[in-house]
Amino acid sequence: MARPRKSEHNREQLLELGASLFMEKGYSGAGIKEILGTVGVPRGSFYNYFESKEQYAAEVIRHYTDRMATQIETYVSTANEPPMKIIENIPSMIMAVAEESGCQGCLMGSLAGEIAANSELCRQAMLEGMSRWRTGFEELFAEAQSSGEMRADLSAAALVELFWNQWQGALLKMQIEDNTEALESSFADFLLLIRA
Amino acid sequence: MARPRKSEHNREQLLELGASLFMEKGYSGAGIKEILGTVGVPRGSFYNYFESKEQYAAEVIRHYTDRMATQIETYVSTANEPPMKIIENIPSMIMAVAEESGCQGCLMGSLAGEIAANSELCRQAMLEGMSRWRTGFEELFAEAQSSGEMRADLSAAALVELFWNQWQGALLKMQIEDNTEALESSFADFLLLIRA
Repeated sequence: MARPRKSEHNREQLLELGASLFMEKGYSGAGIKEILGTVGVPRGSFYNYFESKEQYAAEVIRHYTDRMATQIETYVSTANEPPMKIIENIPSMIMAVAEESGCQGCLMGSLAGEIAANSELCRQAMLEGMSRWRTGFEELFAEAQSSGEMRADLSAAALVELFWNQWQGALLKMQIEDNTEALESSFADFLLLIRA
Repeated sequence: MARPRKSEHNREQLLELGASLFMEKGYSGAGIKEILGTVGVPRGSFYNYFESKEQYAAEVIRHYTDRMATQIETYVSTANEPPMKIIENIPSMIMAVAEESGCQGCLMGSLAGEIAANSELCRQAMLEGMSRWRTGFEELFAEAQSSGEMRADLSAAALVELFWNQWQGALLKMQIEDNTEALESSFADFLLLIRA
């Protein structure tokens, strides 16, 4: 495999570090200068890669949700377990990817409150992330319904929406309580609600 | 009733306007100058009322969650309806208070992602808000369980946690989708999950 050009490498690094930066400081609080120093990229080069901080943030959201989605999709498609068992394992998968990125929580959930209403670019990137979440999970939930493991009085699509809401809300609570314990127990409780 | 002193009046106005300001612009993006102009308060007076922007934000969170909680508690204690019916009506109550404050969504949910990790003062104010939410709803949920309307295989406390998560997640989604319709339908779906 050809070694990536240095500029591509730097762009990738900026995207990688962006997730933890925005998660930690928020959009407005994140200083581009700080991240340029960490990667060792001059300000001029940054604006070769990205038109603006806003466009950079949208790309970071895309980069982060893509990686998250790819890991989950790979796991779901190769796991040799009943659908409900796979669903049970999703949160620990998500948390592992988040930790790899130096993040505690979900970048999308953390940024949405601050910038969804102020940046159409970022809002679009979040919408794409949500759409991929939906597509990825609907089939799995439908399988769990077909196998009789999951209640079927609501559509798979409706249950996936509740799953997303539940997960994002639990992450918010984790940030407020500064405690990860409730995340696991509330997910287990939610699974009880959706079991057949 | 004695007319409040002008300084008290101004402090109250600053707290009132803070909710919509922080909700719209986020914590870092919110300019104190802007809000001082709206209320007509000089910068020096602001620092008589509040030690810092951070302390102001914490007070705004308290002010907002207090008002929300008081309205809900009044409704719950005076409503002459079965517990589950009362629970069904909570979201429209919450949305009405939010609209009165010029807010779309929940101030706590919107700010948590940005500042819970960066401001201990604000995090404490959010914790108090969550604690009041819990206390307010646990009794109501327990009544719904006793009357046989709500499933009882999870504790009332656990179901209140899921309700909070669900609500906050749905508000985040509302901000990303810029659409309030899904909020109502997902709440109705959630109620189906917790019915007996």
